Amino acid sequence: MNKHKIFGMGWKCDAVVAFRRLIPKSALFGLAVLLMGYAFPTNAGEATVEQWGVYEVALSGPTNGNPFTDVQFSARFSQGAVSIVANGFYDGDGIYRVRFMPETQGKWHYATESSSPGLDGMTGEFTVTPPGAKDHGPVRVAHTYHFANADGTPYEELGTTCYVWEWQPEALQEETLRTLASAPFNKIRFCVFPKRYQWNTNEPILYPYVSKDGLATTTNWDFARFNPKYFQHLEQRVADLQKLGIEADIILFHPYDGGHWGFDRMPSEADDRYLHYVVARLAAYRNVWWSLANEWDFMRHKKESDFVRFGEIVAHDDPYHHLLSIHNGSLVFNDTLPFITHASIQNGLAVESPANAELYRDVYRKPVVYDEVQYEGNIESRWGQLSAEEMVFRFWNATVAGTYCGHGETFKSDDQVLWWSKGGVLKGRSPARLAFLKRILATAPAEGIDPVDRWQRPEYGGQPGRYYLVYLGKETPASWKFQLPKPPQSKGHPPDGEQFKADVLDTWNMTITPVPGVFTLKKLDNYTYGDVNNRSIPLPGRPYMAIRIERVKY
Amino acid sequence: MNKHKIFGMGWKCDAVVAFRRLIPKSALFGLAVLLMGYAFPTNAGEATVEQWGVYEVALSGPTNGNPFTDVQFSARFSQGAVSIVANGFYDGDGIYRVRFMPETQGKWHYATESSSPGLDGMTGEFTVTPPGAKDHGPVRVAHTYHFANADGTPYEELGTTCYVWEWQPEALQEETLRTLASAPFNKIRFCVFPKRYQWNTNEPILYPYVSKDGLATTTNWDFARFNPKYFQHLEQRVADLQKLGIEADIILFHPYDGGHWGFDRMPSEADDRYLHYVVARLAAYRNVWWSLANEWDFMRHKKESDFVRFGEIVAHDDPYHHLLSIHNGSLVFNDTLPFITHASIQNGLAVESPANAELYRDVYRKPVVYDEVQYEGNIESRWGQLSAEEMVFRFWNATVAGTYCGHGETFKSDDQVLWWSKGGVLKGRSPARLAFLKRILATAPAEGIDPVDRWQRPEYGGQPGRYYLVYLGKETPASWKFQLPKPPQSKGHPPDGEQFKADVLDTWNMTITPVPGVFTLKKLDNYTYGDVNNRSIPLPGRPYMAIRIERVKY
Repeated sequence: MNKHKIFGMGWKCDAVVAFRRLIPKSALFGLAVLLMGYAFPTNAGEATVEQWGVYEVALSGPTNGNPFTDVQFSARFSQGAVSIVANGFYDGDGIYRVRFMPETQGKWHYATESSSPGLDGMTGEFTVTPPGAKDHGPVRVAHTYHFANADGTPYEELGTTCYVWEWQPEALQEETLRTLASAPFNKIRFCVFPKRYQWNTNEPILYPYVSKDGLATTTNWDFARFNPKYFQHLEQRVADLQKLGIEADIILFHPYDGGHWGFDRMPSEADDRYLHYVVARLAAYRNVWWSLANEWDFMRHKKESDFVRFGEIVAHDDPYHHLLSIHNGSLVFNDTLPFITHASIQNGLAVESPANAELYRDVYRKPVVYDEVQYEGNIESRWGQLSAEEMVFRFWNATVAGTYCGHGETFKSDDQVLWWSKGGVLKGRSPARLAFLKRILATAPAEGIDPVDRWQRPEYGGQPGRYYLVYLGKETPASWKFQLPKPPQSKGHPPDGEQFKADVLDTWNMTITPVPGVFTLKKLDNYTYGDVNNRSIPLPGRPYMAIRIERVKY
Repeated sequence: MNKHKIFGMGWKCDAVVAFRRLIPKSALFGLAVLLMGYAFPTNAGEATVEQWGVYEVALSGPTNGNPFTDVQFSARFSQGAVSIVANGFYDGDGIYRVRFMPETQGKWHYATESSSPGLDGMTGEFTVTPPGAKDHGPVRVAHTYHFANADGTPYEELGTTCYVWEWQPEALQEETLRTLASAPFNKIRFCVFPKRYQWNTNEPILYPYVSKDGLATTTNWDFARFNPKYFQHLEQRVADLQKLGIEADIILFHPYDGGHWGFDRMPSEADDRYLHYVVARLAAYRNVWWSLANEWDFMRHKKESDFVRFGEIVAHDDPYHHLLSIHNGSLVFNDTLPFITHASIQNGLAVESPANAELYRDVYRKPVVYDEVQYEGNIESRWGQLSAEEMVFRFWNATVAGTYCGHGETFKSDDQVLWWSKGGVLKGRSPARLAFLKRILATAPAEGIDPVDRWQRPEYGGQPGRYYLVYLGKETPASWKFQLPKPPQSKGHPPDGEQFKADVLDTWNMTITPVPGVFTLKKLDNYTYGDVNNRSIPLPGRPYMAIRIERVKY
């Protein structure tokens, strides 16, 4: 093996693309190590990268033949007994890159492996420094049904969808990013491939493949030759979202092509090559989630077994095991399969009551994210006509059921720009209420909200004995009798005498009204506790009220 | 191979046990072939059995050592290219039996295989005659979400539960059979092992094993020596149910032992031996269903992987692939596993609306049977306090959702006889209403009831364009505006102008009131059709009403 030592340039920047913009392309040629961190030089000569940052090795290599298919290139990253192999990729202009997301701090070593002698056996060392203040690492499954960042910070999933925002004109992309910067969402779903659908008949700003005839065209693609600029742009946007603290739920396949470009009906070997390439490029970005497909069952040219294969490829290639799901049309996927980390469900009905929403939890024993519950808007299609009230109602049902809901917006627009597909600005009245929900969840137990009397009182979510959210939905009572499903024993004693305080939450008007005094538990029957003074909580007789009940600390 | 020809005695009887009662035990010794059919001799000398009847070969064999474990015994049954191996079993008194349920008519041949020379290589022939008039063969999955008998006769599952009715005193067992004879149920769930639980602290009339010390005892069992009388009695009751046209949903394990006998915590090899023995004895009974366990997750001495193994054993040993399920406590099993033929769900909440009930269908793509939705009764436990109205409500919700519901009854009784556990007589008011439901379903489409506008209008069940049941549940409207979710094209034309007739069903008062005239379809929007004259159907303002809508034949 080639022992030639590589010296890293002491650069950090927020993403490879941002970095690329700062230095002349020529600097990318020849042997080089690029480190992703912040966009200014520091400790020149010492190779460092932040934990959960992107460490990249870029090497110049062969340009003859088809570098995308002729050259195998990867690197083994090692720290003590830990050794991780990351696949590399060809980025055009003779540059081969391999990226690594270090999950532990300290010294790391790497050695490249390649079928091309000039790319093989290159070695180097670098130091992984503590993460940035706002960097909590990738999101993982936590407490079976919930999520948390790698550093343990709870992550209360609150997602939206803009299917192809990143393929719209530059100014619209920037507007979308500005909107997201002040919106409550911490995840956005979008597609790698361009989309063609109602309200979305414009061509993308770039194409993922080059055409066989060398023309910019919408047909005759060479599925063996990717367009690096397409994926460089995609990475730029993933990095931009990362800066905003937003997870990128990347949809790998979708049916909204209809053969116009044909990316929905590539041959199997092209599908697989595409997956290997995308994972090699993007897996090192900590905010990446994988969605195998949107409405997988609407892809007429694919079989269900194709998506199983796709899941196995992504799970195999991704060294960091990012969250992985698949989104259904009318046929729910088998989300019990081991490579599926959480259920990504389209089903508006399922969130019309907590009783519905919680059922998928039982089946999958994984987090359930209702990524599509129809859209707030006013288009003709009935899936795009939700009122803001109904959208917020569905979020709260999902929340007390111990699941997560997804936002989307489809307001008719003369400029054909609907948030659901292209991004832009938010026009609906639900996002402000979702920000209120987010504020409530920010002080909820770190373990998440779970049903506390599943199959009997689904309107109660929380953590038994400590914290409860009771969502009254469309009921408009003038008061609510204080009751809790029998709490667990506390310090070996029955819960009689324990004290709780309550707040009345108006989830629509976004008010939190503390209820004076405390509630002291008294057993009512084998299943229910109430207040010793039989207290009720007065309510305004409006819909969409919730009660927050927290145990009094002592 | 021993070419010694066996001559069958021309006997038929309804079950091996009934048969055994008719002839002296001595007749069971020596070489004999017993044929199960009806309990009188016919065509002596010619061996015949009805299709889907039980053909049995009984041979005398070694009694030394432990015949249950020392002797392998099976037979290969052949007809042309078809060859089926059925495991035999030791039935005590030196008799070894192997049973076969022929699924096709005509000549069959068999040859025995055994580790014991005297039992090996015995051959014979028999003729399978047409099934009896009331015999439609075993129940299978049909149309993905439903059931049908092997001869194609639709089977609208309508089950009840009497966990250990067959281990109660003889007179009570006979009373249970009399009750079942006039009840609407076509399936009953019950346990192989005895049960010890509240309202059920009496000892069974028999025990499944002999004790090591030879005494009738409730401990110190020899799990390697079965008590044939126990299983002979079980078979008798399965045969009695078969006579009544009732499927026997046999629960193989359950937690209601608590170590009192220890059948809930046998060693793995004893569990497996037990399963092999039960399947060898019972698989040839056409009305057998297998339930791996009741409340599987409440069996503290078993792991989930044990039940996967149990399922694989039963599916492997059963030559006829009877329906196979497993019933949950609070943890739903992975019913996507291939050996599970249908979901057997305990969840009362899931049938409180059609919107809930249909969700499991999407997940499993198999029939969903809500075998436990709580019980009509008045005991202290909240799972045993349903009103009759609520029980019937849950059945109708399940029905229009394209699923099946299960009945049970827990009325306090001084004699400690509660239907749910011991059988006896039915005291509730729901069975009469379930008979009404059964009557409605008897004229429903053979393909079964499916949701027709899933995730939008779950109260509509039926077959699009042909037949609809709309269940209004607890709503009490004075009229119902005639509307149908957009029906499919008919003969290539839009459904405009097609005619339907309607009946008002009072599911509680059990009345069918035809609505005068017809309804002629007119498109209202992209999703909904109504009547050209904008007709509504008057209703009495009572709950539990349903509308039946059928296309007018022409």
